[in-house]
Amino acid sequence: MKIARCTEGGAPFWALVDTDTQTLQPIAGAFADWGPALTRAIAAGKAEEGRAALPLAGEARPLDSVRLLPPIEPINRVVVAGANYAKHLADDFGLKAPPQPIAFLKAYGALIGAHDPIRYPPLTQELDHEVELVVAVGSAPVDLADPLASVLGYTVGNDVSARDLQRSGPVGIGMDLFAAKSQDGSTGLGPWIVTRDEFPAGSPKLRLTLKVNGETRQDGNTAEMTWDVAQLVAFVQARSSFAGGDVMFTGSPAGVGQGTGRFLNPGDVVEASVDGIGTICNVVGPKAGA
Amino acid sequence: MKIARCTEGGAPFWALVDTDTQTLQPIAGAFADWGPALTRAIAAGKAEEGRAALPLAGEARPLDSVRLLPPIEPINRVVVAGANYAKHLADDFGLKAPPQPIAFLKAYGALIGAHDPIRYPPLTQELDHEVELVVAVGSAPVDLADPLASVLGYTVGNDVSARDLQRSGPVGIGMDLFAAKSQDGSTGLGPWIVTRDEFPAGSPKLRLTLKVNGETRQDGNTAEMTWDVAQLVAFVQARSSFAGGDVMFTGSPAGVGQGTGRFLNPGDVVEASVDGIGTICNVVGPKAGA
Repeated sequence: MKIARCTEGGAPFWALVDTDTQTLQPIAGAFADWGPALTRAIAAGKAEEGRAALPLAGEARPLDSVRLLPPIEPINRVVVAGANYAKHLADDFGLKAPPQPIAFLKAYGALIGAHDPIRYPPLTQELDHEVELVVAVGSAPVDLADPLASVLGYTVGNDVSARDLQRSGPVGIGMDLFAAKSQDGSTGLGPWIVTRDEFPAGSPKLRLTLKVNGETRQDGNTAEMTWDVAQLVAFVQARSSFAGGDVMFTGSPAGVGQGTGRFLNPGDVVEASVDGIGTICNVVGPKAGA
Repeated sequence: MKIARCTEGGAPFWALVDTDTQTLQPIAGAFADWGPALTRAIAAGKAEEGRAALPLAGEARPLDSVRLLPPIEPINRVVVAGANYAKHLADDFGLKAPPQPIAFLKAYGALIGAHDPIRYPPLTQELDHEVELVVAVGSAPVDLADPLASVLGYTVGNDVSARDLQRSGPVGIGMDLFAAKSQDGSTGLGPWIVTRDEFPAGSPKLRLTLKVNGETRQDGNTAEMTWDVAQLVAFVQARSSFAGGDVMFTGSPAGVGQGTGRFLNPGDVVEASVDGIGTICNVVGPKAGA
Protein backbone atom coordinates (compact mmCIF):
# COMPACT_ATOMS: atom_id res chain seq x y z
CA MET A 1 0.00 0.00 0.00
CA LYS A 2 1.00 3.61 -0.55
CA ILE A 3 0.65 6.10 2.28
CA ALA A 4 0.98 9.81 1.62
CA ARG A 5 0.90 12.91 3.80
CA CYS A 6 -0.85 15.81 2.19
CA THR A 7 -2.86 19.00 2.51
CA GLU A 8 -5.81 20.57 0.78
CA GLY A 9 -4.63 23.95 2.03
CA GLY A 10 -5.43 23.34 5.70
CA ALA A 11 -4.05 20.96 8.30
CA PRO A 12 -1.87 18.14 6.95
CA PHE A 13 -3.37 14.66 6.93
CA TRP A 14 -2.25 11.15 6.05
CA ALA A 15 -3.97 9.24 3.25
CA LEU A 16 -4.06 5.85 1.55
CA VAL A 17 -3.22 6.29 -2.13
CA ASP A 18 -4.68 4.26 -5.00
CA THR A 19 -2.53 4.93 -8.05
CA ASP A 20 -4.80 2.84 -10.31
CA THR A 21 -7.72 5.18 -9.77
CA GLN A 22 -5.48 8.20 -9.01
CA THR A 23 -7.36 8.82 -5.78
CA LEU A 24 -6.57 8.93 -2.11
CA GLN A 25 -8.59 8.42 1.03
CA PRO A 26 -7.74 10.23 4.29
CA ILE A 27 -6.50 8.31 7.32
CA ALA A 28 -7.69 9.82 10.61
CA GLY A 29 -5.24 10.86 13.29
CA ALA A 30 -1.53 11.19 13.70
CA PHE A 31 1.04 8.60 12.60
CA ALA A 32 1.32 7.41 16.19
CA ASP A 33 -2.37 6.42 16.11
CA TRP A 34 -1.99 3.82 13.36
CA GLY A 35 1.59 3.69 12.03
CA PRO A 36 3.12 1.43 14.69
CA ALA A 37 0.19 -1.02 14.51
CA LEU A 38 0.39 -1.18 10.72
CA THR A 39 4.14 -1.73 10.88
CA ARG A 40 3.72 -4.58 13.36
CA ALA A 41 1.03 -6.15 11.18
CA ILE A 42 3.35 -6.06 8.17
CA ALA A 43 6.18 -7.56 10.22
CA ALA A 44 3.81 -10.37 11.21
CA GLY A 45 2.96 -11.06 7.55
CA LYS A 46 -0.52 -9.61 8.01
CA ALA A 47 -0.39 -6.54 5.80
CA GLU A 48 -4.00 -6.92 4.64
CA GLU A 49 -5.25 -7.08 8.21
CA GLY A 50 -3.18 -4.00 8.99
CA ARG A 51 -4.69 -2.20 6.04
CA ALA A 52 -8.21 -3.16 7.08
CA ALA A 53 -7.54 -1.72 10.53
CA LEU A 54 -6.49 1.70 9.21
CA PRO A 55 -8.87 4.43 10.48
CA LEU A 56 -9.96 5.61 7.03
CA ALA A 57 -12.08 8.74 7.19
CA GLY A 58 -14.05 10.61 4.59
CA GLU A 59 -14.51 10.24 0.87
CA ALA A 60 -11.85 9.34 -1.65
CA ARG A 61 -10.66 12.34 -3.65
CA PRO A 62 -8.51 12.88 -6.73
CA LEU A 63 -4.79 12.55 -6.11
CA ASP A 64 -4.20 15.74 -8.06
CA SER A 65 -6.52 17.69 -5.75
CA VAL A 66 -4.01 17.66 -2.87
CA ARG A 67 -0.48 18.92 -2.32
CA LEU A 68 1.82 16.08 -1.35
CA LEU A 69 3.88 16.81 1.75
CA PRO A 70 6.98 15.00 2.97
CA PRO A 71 5.66 11.77 4.58
CA ILE A 72 6.95 12.58 8.07
CA GLU A 73 5.47 14.68 10.85
CA PRO A 74 7.39 17.64 12.35
CA ILE A 75 7.69 15.78 15.67
CA ASN A 76 9.86 13.16 13.99
CA ARG A 77 13.50 13.26 13.06
CA VAL A 78 15.29 13.00 9.75
CA VAL A 79 18.39 10.81 9.95
CA VAL A 80 20.87 10.66 7.10
CA ALA A 81 23.18 7.67 6.90
CA GLY A 82 25.76 8.36 4.24
CA ALA A 83 29.04 7.23 2.72
CA ASN A 84 27.14 4.16 1.57
CA TYR A 85 28.01 3.86 -2.14
CA ALA A 86 31.71 3.22 -2.73
CA LYS A 87 31.70 4.54 -6.30
CA HIS A 88 30.04 7.80 -5.20
CA LEU A 89 32.73 8.29 -2.56
CA ALA A 90 35.55 7.44 -4.96
CA ASP A 91 34.30 9.27 -8.06
CA ASP A 92 32.70 12.29 -6.41
CA PHE A 93 34.83 12.87 -3.32
CA GLY A 94 38.07 10.93 -3.92
CA LEU A 95 37.45 8.97 -0.73
CA LYS A 96 37.80 5.28 0.07
CA ALA A 97 34.86 3.39 1.50
CA PRO A 98 35.09 3.87 5.28
CA PRO A 99 34.98 1.02 7.80
CA GLN A 100 31.55 2.15 9.01
CA PRO A 101 28.77 4.51 7.86
CA ILE A 102 28.40 8.08 9.01
CA ALA A 103 25.05 9.30 10.32
CA PHE A 104 23.77 12.77 11.09
CA LEU A 105 20.51 14.65 11.50
CA LYS A 106 18.84 16.86 8.92
CA ALA A 107 16.54 19.72 9.97
CA TYR A 108 12.85 19.02 9.38
CA GLY A 109 12.56 22.46 7.80
CA ALA A 110 14.81 21.29 4.98
CA LEU A 111 12.10 18.98 3.68
CA ILE A 112 9.78 19.71 0.77
CA GLY A 113 7.07 17.60 -0.83
CA ALA A 114 7.12 15.65 -4.08
CA HIS A 115 6.30 18.60 -6.32
CA ASP A 116 7.40 21.60 -4.27
CA PRO A 117 10.07 23.98 -5.54
CA ILE A 118 13.65 23.59 -4.30
CA ARG A 119 14.73 26.78 -2.55
CA TYR A 120 18.13 27.93 -3.86
CA PRO A 121 19.96 28.81 -0.61
CA PRO A 122 21.64 32.22 -0.72
CA LEU A 123 25.02 31.14 0.70
CA THR A 124 25.85 28.49 -1.91
CA GLN A 125 27.12 28.52 -5.47
CA GLU A 126 27.23 24.74 -5.75
CA LEU A 127 23.79 23.24 -5.25
CA ASP A 128 23.85 19.51 -5.88
CA HIS A 129 21.47 16.55 -6.05
CA GLU A 130 21.52 13.12 -4.37
CA VAL A 131 18.78 10.59 -5.10
CA GLU A 132 18.35 8.21 -2.18
CA LEU A 133 16.20 5.39 -0.94
CA VAL A 134 14.62 6.62 2.29
CA VAL A 135 13.48 4.26 5.03
CA ALA A 136 10.30 5.05 6.96
CA VAL A 137 10.62 3.65 10.47
CA GLY A 138 7.18 2.71 11.71
CA SER A 139 7.51 1.27 15.19
CA ALA A 140 9.82 1.46 18.16
CA PRO A 141 11.89 0.30 19.86
CA VAL A 142 13.92 -1.06 16.96
CA ASP A 143 15.17 -4.57 17.65
CA LEU A 144 18.88 -4.64 16.77
CA ALA A 145 18.51 -8.34 15.92
CA ASP A 146 15.63 -7.69 13.50
CA PRO A 147 15.72 -4.03 12.46
CA LEU A 148 13.52 -4.50 9.37
CA ALA A 149 10.60 -5.48 11.62
CA SER A 150 10.36 -1.80 12.59
CA VAL A 151 10.39 -0.55 9.00
CA LEU A 152 6.99 0.49 7.63
CA GLY A 153 8.26 1.04 4.11
CA TYR A 154 10.27 3.17 1.74
CA THR A 155 10.10 6.51 0.00
CA VAL A 156 12.26 8.61 -2.33
CA GLY A 157 14.56 11.43 -1.25
CA ASN A 158 16.64 14.02 -3.02
CA ASP A 159 19.23 15.02 -0.41
CA VAL A 160 20.04 18.37 -2.05
CA SER A 161 23.44 19.52 -0.83
CA ALA A 162 25.36 22.81 -0.88
CA ARG A 163 28.82 21.44 -1.72
CA ASP A 164 30.84 24.60 -1.14
CA LEU A 165 29.32 24.86 2.33
CA GLN A 166 29.96 21.15 2.90
CA ARG A 167 33.68 21.85 2.36
CA SER A 168 33.58 24.88 4.69
CA GLY A 169 33.75 22.77 7.84
CA PRO A 170 36.73 23.31 10.15
CA VAL A 171 39.92 21.33 9.55
CA GLY A 172 40.13 18.51 12.07
CA ILE A 173 36.40 18.50 12.68
CA GLY A 174 35.10 17.65 9.24
CA MET A 175 32.53 18.38 6.59
CA ASP A 176 29.85 20.91 7.49
CA LEU A 177 26.96 18.57 6.82
CA PHE A 178 24.51 20.88 8.61
CA ALA A 179 25.16 23.83 6.32
CA ALA A 180 25.27 21.51 3.31
CA LYS A 181 22.13 19.52 4.00
CA SER A 182 19.80 21.36 6.40
CA GLN A 183 19.06 24.38 4.22
CA ASP A 184 15.40 25.42 4.42
CA GLY A 185 13.11 24.00 1.74
CA SER A 186 15.69 22.05 -0.22
CA THR A 187 15.26 18.29 0.30
CA GLY A 188 12.55 16.56 -1.71
CA LEU A 189 10.83 13.62 0.01
CA GLY A 190 7.96 11.52 -1.27
CA PRO A 191 5.72 11.06 -3.12
CA TRP A 192 4.56 8.51 -0.51
CA ILE A 193 5.67 5.60 1.61
CA VAL A 194 5.33 2.22 -0.14
CA THR A 195 4.94 -0.40 2.55
CA ARG A 196 7.54 -3.10 2.97
CA ASP A 197 5.17 -5.95 2.09
CA GLU A 198 5.26 -4.81 -1.56
CA PHE A 199 8.94 -5.77 -1.85
CA PRO A 200 10.74 -9.09 -1.47
CA ALA A 201 11.94 -9.95 2.04
CA GLY A 202 15.21 -8.39 3.17
CA SER A 203 16.78 -5.09 2.26
CA PRO A 204 15.33 -3.86 -1.02
CA LYS A 205 17.32 -4.03 -4.25
CA LEU A 206 15.93 -1.20 -6.34
CA ARG A 207 17.15 0.93 -9.22
CA LEU A 208 17.33 4.62 -8.39
CA THR A 209 17.81 7.39 -10.91
CA LEU A 210 18.04 11.15 -11.00
CA LYS A 211 17.39 13.30 -14.05
CA VAL A 212 18.03 17.00 -14.53
CA ASN A 213 15.94 18.52 -17.33
CA GLY A 214 15.34 15.00 -18.65
CA GLU A 215 19.02 14.00 -18.71
CA THR A 216 20.02 11.10 -16.47
CA ARG A 217 22.73 12.15 -14.00
CA GLN A 218 22.54 9.32 -11.45
CA ASP A 219 21.64 5.72 -12.21
CA GLY A 220 22.34 3.23 -9.46
CA ASN A 221 20.85 0.40 -7.49
CA THR A 222 20.39 0.02 -3.76
CA ALA A 223 22.04 -3.41 -4.17
CA GLU A 224 25.33 -1.43 -4.46
CA MET A 225 25.00 -0.06 -0.93
CA THR A 226 27.99 -0.87 1.29
CA TRP A 227 25.62 -1.34 4.25
CA ASP A 228 22.11 -2.52 3.53
CA VAL A 229 18.96 -1.09 5.10
CA ALA A 230 18.96 -3.50 8.03
CA GLN A 231 22.60 -2.71 8.81
CA LEU A 232 22.05 1.05 8.58
CA VAL A 233 18.96 1.00 10.80
CA ALA A 234 20.84 -1.04 13.38
CA PHE A 235 23.91 1.24 13.15
CA VAL A 236 21.83 4.31 13.89
CA GLN A 237 19.66 2.63 16.53
CA ALA A 238 22.74 1.54 18.48
CA ARG A 239 23.80 5.20 18.71
CA SER A 240 20.49 7.06 19.07
CA SER A 241 17.05 5.46 19.18
CA PHE A 242 14.47 5.75 16.44
CA ALA A 243 10.84 6.61 17.10
CA GLY A 244 7.96 5.45 14.94
CA GLY A 245 7.52 7.98 12.12
CA ASP A 246 11.22 8.83 11.77
CA VAL A 247 12.85 8.56 8.35
CA MET A 248 16.39 7.63 7.36
CA PHE A 249 18.16 8.53 4.12
CA THR A 250 20.52 5.76 3.00
CA GLY A 251 23.15 7.41 0.81
CA SER A 252 23.40 8.25 -2.86
CA PRO A 253 25.05 6.56 -5.83
CA ALA A 254 27.68 8.18 -8.09
CA GLY A 255 26.96 10.91 -10.59
CA VAL A 256 26.44 14.04 -8.51
CA GLY A 257 27.70 17.51 -9.41
CA GLN A 258 30.49 17.25 -6.82
CA GLY A 259 32.14 14.77 -9.19
CA THR A 260 31.04 16.10 -12.57
CA GLY A 261 31.11 19.84 -11.86
CA ARG A 262 27.53 20.11 -13.12
CA PHE A 263 25.57 21.67 -10.29
CA LEU A 264 21.91 22.64 -10.15
CA ASN A 265 20.75 25.95 -11.58
CA PRO A 266 17.56 27.97 -11.14
CA GLY A 267 14.80 26.56 -13.31
CA ASP A 268 16.26 23.05 -13.48
CA VAL A 269 13.65 20.29 -13.34
CA VAL A 270 14.96 17.57 -11.03
CA GLU A 271 13.34 14.14 -11.06
CA ALA A 272 14.40 11.58 -8.47
CA SER A 273 12.99 8.06 -8.83
CA VAL A 274 13.21 4.72 -7.11
CA ASP A 275 11.70 1.76 -8.95
CA GLY A 276 8.61 0.42 -7.23
CA ILE A 277 8.13 3.59 -5.20
CA GLY A 278 7.71 6.58 -7.49
CA THR A 279 9.17 9.88 -8.62
CA ILE A 280 9.52 13.26 -7.00
CA CYS A 281 9.89 16.18 -9.37
CA ASN A 282 11.09 19.50 -8.01
CA VAL A 283 12.05 22.67 -9.84
CA VAL A 284 15.00 24.71 -8.59
CA GLY A 285 13.92 28.21 -7.53
CA PRO A 286 15.68 31.50 -8.20
CA LYS A 287 18.86 32.60 -6.47
CA ALA A 288 18.35 35.15 -3.71
CA GLY A 289 18.33 38.66 -5.15
CA ALA A 290 17.91 37.32 -8.68
CA MET B 1 12.03 35.47 35.18
CA LYS B 2 12.71 31.76 35.23
CA ILE B 3 10.67 29.41 33.05
CA ALA B 4 10.83 25.66 33.56
CA ARG B 5 9.26 22.68 31.85
CA CYS B 6 8.25 19.96 34.22
CA THR B 7 5.99 17.06 35.06
CA GLU B 8 4.15 15.80 38.10
CA GLY B 9 4.11 12.35 36.54
CA GLY B 10 1.64 13.17 33.77
CA ALA B 11 1.79 15.46 30.76
CA PRO B 12 4.67 17.94 30.71
CA PHE B 13 3.82 21.57 31.39
CA TRP B 14 5.64 24.89 31.47
CA ALA B 15 5.86 26.90 34.68
CA LEU B 16 7.06 30.21 36.07
CA VAL B 17 9.58 29.56 38.83
CA ASP B 18 10.05 31.63 41.97
CA THR B 19 13.37 30.62 43.52
CA ASP B 20 12.84 32.89 46.54
CA THR B 21 9.79 30.94 47.65
CA GLN B 22 10.93 27.70 45.94
CA THR B 23 7.60 27.42 44.16
CA LEU B 24 6.41 27.34 40.60
CA GLN B 25 3.14 28.20 38.91
CA PRO B 26 1.99 26.41 35.75
CA ILE B 27 1.75 28.27 32.44
CA ALA B 28 -1.13 27.04 30.28
CA GLY B 29 -0.55 25.81 26.75
CA ALA B 30 2.36 25.04 24.50
CA PHE B 31 5.43 27.23 24.08
CA ALA B 32 3.99 28.51 20.81
CA ASP B 33 1.00 29.95 22.72
CA TRP B 34 3.04 32.38 24.82
CA GLY B 35 6.78 32.03 24.12
CA PRO B 36 7.02 34.18 20.98
CA ALA B 37 4.90 36.95 22.55
CA LEU B 38 7.02 36.97 25.71
CA THR B 39 10.20 37.05 23.62
CA ARG B 40 8.93 40.01 21.62
CA ALA B 41 7.93 41.83 24.82
CA ILE B 42 11.43 41.35 26.22
CA ALA B 43 12.98 42.56 22.96
CA ALA B 44 10.80 45.66 23.22
CA GLY B 45 12.02 46.33 26.77
CA LYS B 46 8.65 45.34 28.20
CA ALA B 47 9.53 42.20 30.14
CA GLU B 48 7.09 42.97 32.97
CA GLU B 49 4.22 43.41 30.52
CA GLY B 50 5.21 40.14 28.91
CA ARG B 51 5.21 38.42 32.26
CA ALA B 52 1.81 39.85 33.14
CA ALA B 53 0.42 38.45 29.87
CA LEU B 54 1.59 34.89 30.60
CA PRO B 55 -1.40 32.50 30.80
CA LEU B 56 -0.74 31.35 34.38
CA ALA B 57 -3.00 28.51 35.41
CA GLY B 58 -3.59 26.81 38.71
CA GLU B 59 -2.03 27.12 42.12
CA ALA B 60 1.62 27.60 42.92
CA ARG B 61 3.30 24.41 44.14
CA PRO B 62 6.62 23.50 45.68
CA LEU B 63 9.53 23.40 43.26
CA ASP B 64 10.63 20.09 44.73
CA SER B 65 7.24 18.52 44.00
CA VAL B 66 7.92 18.33 40.24
CA ARG B 67 10.48 16.67 38.01
CA LEU B 68 12.29 19.25 35.91
CA LEU B 69 12.38 18.37 32.21
CA PRO B 70 14.61 19.85 29.52
CA PRO B 71 13.06 23.25 28.72
CA ILE B 72 12.29 22.40 25.08
CA GLU B 73 9.33 20.59 23.51
CA PRO B 74 9.86 17.49 21.33
CA ILE B 75 8.66 19.42 18.25
CA ASN B 76 11.68 21.69 18.52
CA ARG B 77 15.23 21.11 17.48
CA VAL B 78 18.47 21.04 19.40
CA VAL B 79 21.28 22.84 17.58
CA VAL B 80 24.86 22.59 18.75
CA ALA B 81 27.30 25.28 17.64
CA GLY B 82 30.76 24.18 18.63
CA ALA B 83 34.46 24.86 18.24
CA ASN B 84 33.81 28.09 20.09
CA TYR B 85 36.47 28.15 22.82
CA ALA B 86 40.00 28.35 21.44
CA LYS B 87 41.65 26.90 24.55
CA HIS B 88 39.28 23.90 24.54
CA LEU B 89 40.16 23.19 20.93
CA ALA B 90 43.89 23.62 21.53
CA ASP B 91 44.20 21.84 24.90
CA ASP B 92 41.64 19.09 24.38
CA PHE B 93 41.80 18.36 20.65
CA GLY B 94 45.10 19.88 19.46
CA LEU B 95 43.19 22.00 16.96
CA LYS B 96 43.55 25.66 15.98
CA ALA B 97 40.52 27.94 16.18
CA PRO B 98 38.74 27.55 12.84
CA PRO B 99 37.69 30.47 10.64
CA GLN B 100 34.03 29.81 11.39
CA PRO B 101 31.95 27.76 13.88
CA ILE B 102 30.61 24.30 13.19
CA ALA B 103 26.95 23.56 13.81
CA PHE B 104 25.05 20.29 13.91
CA LEU B 105 21.83 18.83 15.29
CA LYS B 106 21.46 16.75 18.43
CA ALA B 107 18.62 14.24 18.80
CA TYR B 108 15.85 15.35 21.15
CA GLY B 109 15.99 11.92 22.77
CA ALA B 110 19.49 12.72 24.01
CA LEU B 111 18.12 15.30 26.44
CA ILE B 112 17.53 14.75 30.14
CA GLY B 113 16.30 17.12 32.84
CA ALA B 114 18.23 18.94 35.53
CA HIS B 115 18.33 16.03 37.98
CA ASP B 116 17.85 13.00 35.76
CA PRO B 117 20.49 10.27 35.56
CA ILE B 118 22.95 10.27 32.66
CA ARG B 119 22.60 7.03 30.72
CA TYR B 120 26.01 5.44 30.15
CA PRO B 121 25.81 4.44 26.45
CA PRO B 122 26.90 0.86 25.79
CA LEU B 123 29.18 1.57 22.81
CA THR B 124 31.54 4.00 24.53
CA GLN B 125 34.42 3.69 26.96
CA GLU B 126 35.12 7.42 27.02
CA LEU B 127 32.11 9.34 28.28
CA ASP B 128 32.94 13.02 28.68
CA HIS B 129 31.36 16.24 29.96
CA GLU B 130 30.97 19.68 28.37
CA VAL B 131 29.31 22.50 30.31
CA GLU B 132 27.74 25.01 27.93
CA LEU B 133 25.62 28.12 27.88
CA VAL B 134 22.49 27.19 25.94
CA VAL B 135 20.40 29.76 24.09
CA ALA B 136 16.61 29.45 24.08
CA VAL B 137 15.28 30.91 20.85
CA GLY B 138 11.82 32.30 21.51
CA SER B 139 10.50 33.81 18.30
CA ALA B 140 10.95 33.43 14.58
CA PRO B 141 11.98 34.41 12.02
CA VAL B 142 15.35 35.40 13.43
CA ASP B 143 16.48 38.77 12.08
CA LEU B 144 20.10 38.35 10.94
CA ALA B 145 20.68 42.02 11.74
CA ASP B 146 19.36 41.65 15.31
CA PRO B 147 19.52 37.97 16.29
CA LEU B 148 19.28 38.61 20.06
CA ALA B 149 15.78 40.02 19.58
CA SER B 150 14.65 36.42 18.98
CA VAL B 151 16.34 35.06 22.10
CA LEU B 152 14.02 34.39 25.04
CA GLY B 153 16.82 33.57 27.44
CA TYR B 154 19.48 31.13 28.51
CA THR B 155 19.81 27.78 30.21
CA VAL B 156 22.58 25.36 31.18
CA GLY B 157 23.65 22.32 29.18
CA ASN B 158 26.01 19.43 29.71
CA ASP B 159 26.76 18.21 26.19
CA VAL B 160 27.88 14.74 27.29
CA SER B 161 30.01 13.23 24.54
CA ALA B 162 31.26 9.74 23.71
CA ARG B 163 34.81 10.64 22.64
CA ASP B 164 35.85 7.28 21.21
CA LEU B 165 32.75 7.33 19.01
CA GLN B 166 33.46 10.95 18.09
CA ARG B 167 36.81 9.78 16.68
CA SER B 168 35.19 6.86 14.82
CA GLY B 169 33.99 9.06 11.95
CA PRO B 170 35.28 8.22 8.46
CA VAL B 171 38.55 9.79 7.29
CA GLY B 172 37.78 12.64 4.91
CA ILE B 173 34.29 13.13 6.31
CA GLY B 174 35.04 13.99 9.91
CA MET B 175 34.12 13.50 13.51
CA ASP B 176 31.06 11.34 14.19
CA LEU B 177 29.23 14.01 16.16
CA PHE B 178 25.95 12.06 15.94
CA ALA B 179 27.33 8.99 17.67
CA ALA B 180 29.21 11.18 20.14
CA LYS B 181 26.44 13.55 21.09
CA SER B 182 23.01 12.09 20.26
CA GLN B 183 23.13 9.11 22.62
CA ASP B 184 19.78 8.53 24.34
CA GLY B 185 19.37 10.14 27.75
CA SER B 186 22.80 11.67 28.06
CA THR B 187 22.63 15.48 27.71
CA GLY B 188 21.54 17.47 30.75
CA LEU B 189 19.57 20.63 30.06
CA GLY B 190 18.03 23.04 32.55
CA PRO B 191 17.13 23.70 35.27
CA TRP B 192 15.12 26.46 33.54
CA ILE B 193 15.33 29.29 31.06
CA VAL B 194 16.35 32.60 32.62
CA THR B 195 14.96 35.35 30.43
CA ARG B 196 17.30 37.73 28.66
CA ASP B 197 16.07 40.82 30.52
CA GLU B 198 17.86 39.55 33.65
CA PHE B 199 21.26 40.04 31.98
CA PRO B 200 23.01 43.14 30.62
CA ALA B 201 22.34 43.96 26.97
CA GLY B 202 24.36 42.06 24.40
CA SER B 203 25.76 38.54 24.47
CA PRO B 204 26.05 37.40 28.08
CA LYS B 205 29.44 37.23 29.84
CA LEU B 206 28.95 34.50 32.43
CA ARG B 207 31.19 32.15 34.35
CA LEU B 208 30.48 28.49 33.68
CA THR B 209 31.84 25.60 35.69
CA LEU B 210 31.61 21.84 35.77
CA LYS B 211 32.35 19.68 38.79
CA VAL B 212 32.70 15.92 39.01
CA ASN B 213 32.18 14.59 42.54
CA GLY B 214 32.75 18.10 43.83
CA GLU B 215 36.05 18.66 42.00
CA THR B 216 36.10 21.47 39.46
CA ARG B 217 37.02 20.19 35.99
CA GLN B 218 35.89 23.08 33.79
CA ASP B 219 35.96 26.75 34.80
CA GLY B 220 35.47 29.23 31.99
CA ASN B 221 33.54 32.29 30.97
CA THR B 222 31.30 32.85 27.98
CA ALA B 223 33.30 36.02 27.37
CA GLU B 224 36.01 33.65 26.01
CA MET B 225 33.78 32.45 23.19
CA THR B 226 35.29 32.96 19.74
CA TRP B 227 31.83 33.83 18.39
CA ASP B 228 29.34 35.40 20.75
CA VAL B 229 25.69 34.43 21.06
CA ALA B 230 24.49 36.91 18.46
CA GLN B 231 27.08 35.71 15.95
CA LEU B 232 26.28 32.04 16.56
CA VAL B 233 22.53 32.54 16.23
CA ALA B 234 23.06 34.42 12.97
CA PHE B 235 25.51 31.78 11.68
CA VAL B 236 22.99 29.00 12.21
CA GLN B 237 20.00 31.02 11.00
CA ALA B 238 21.75 31.80 7.71
CA ARG B 239 22.11 28.04 7.10
CA SER B 240 18.87 26.61 8.54
CA SER B 241 16.09 28.62 10.15
CA PHE B 242 15.25 28.55 13.83
CA ALA B 243 11.72 28.18 15.14
CA GLY B 244 10.50 29.60 18.43
CA GLY B 245 11.27 27.06 21.16
CA ASP B 246 14.49 25.74 19.60
CA VAL B 247 17.65 25.70 21.70
CA MET B 248 21.29 26.15 20.72
CA PHE B 249 24.34 24.93 22.63
CA THR B 250 27.25 27.37 22.30
CA GLY B 251 30.40 25.33 22.89
CA SER B 252 32.39 24.34 25.95
CA PRO B 253 35.52 25.72 27.61
CA ALA B 254 38.70 23.72 28.26
CA GLY B 255 39.05 21.01 30.85
CA VAL B 256 37.16 18.04 29.44
CA GLY B 257 38.27 14.42 29.68
CA GLN B 258 39.34 14.42 26.04
CA GLY B 259 42.26 16.60 27.14
CA THR B 260 42.89 15.30 30.65
CA GLY B 261 42.15 11.60 30.13
CA ARG B 262 39.71 11.73 33.05
CA PHE B 263 36.40 10.51 31.67
CA LEU B 264 33.09 10.00 33.45
CA ASN B 265 32.42 6.82 35.38
CA PRO B 266 29.24 5.21 36.70
CA GLY B 267 28.16 6.90 39.91
CA ASP B 268 29.92 10.19 39.20
CA VAL B 269 27.96 13.24 40.32
CA VAL B 270 28.22 15.84 37.57
CA GLU B 271 27.28 19.44 38.32
CA ALA B 272 27.17 21.94 35.46
CA SER B 273 26.58 25.59 36.38
CA VAL B 274 26.31 28.93 34.67
CA ASP B 275 26.31 31.99 36.93
CA GLY B 276 22.98 33.76 36.96
CA ILE B 277 21.14 30.74 35.58
CA GLY B 278 21.59 27.76 37.87
CA THR B 279 23.01 24.27 38.21
CA ILE B 280 22.08 20.93 36.76
CA CYS B 281 23.23 17.90 38.69
CA ASN B 282 23.16 14.51 37.02
CA VAL B 283 24.52 11.19 38.20
CA VAL B 284 26.14 8.84 35.68
CA GLY B 285 24.27 5.57 35.45
CA PRO B 286 25.70 2.05 35.23
CA LYS B 287 27.40 0.61 32.17
CA ALA B 288 25.23 -1.76 30.16
CA GLY B 289 25.50 -5.25 31.52
CA ALA B 290 27.06 -4.01 34.77
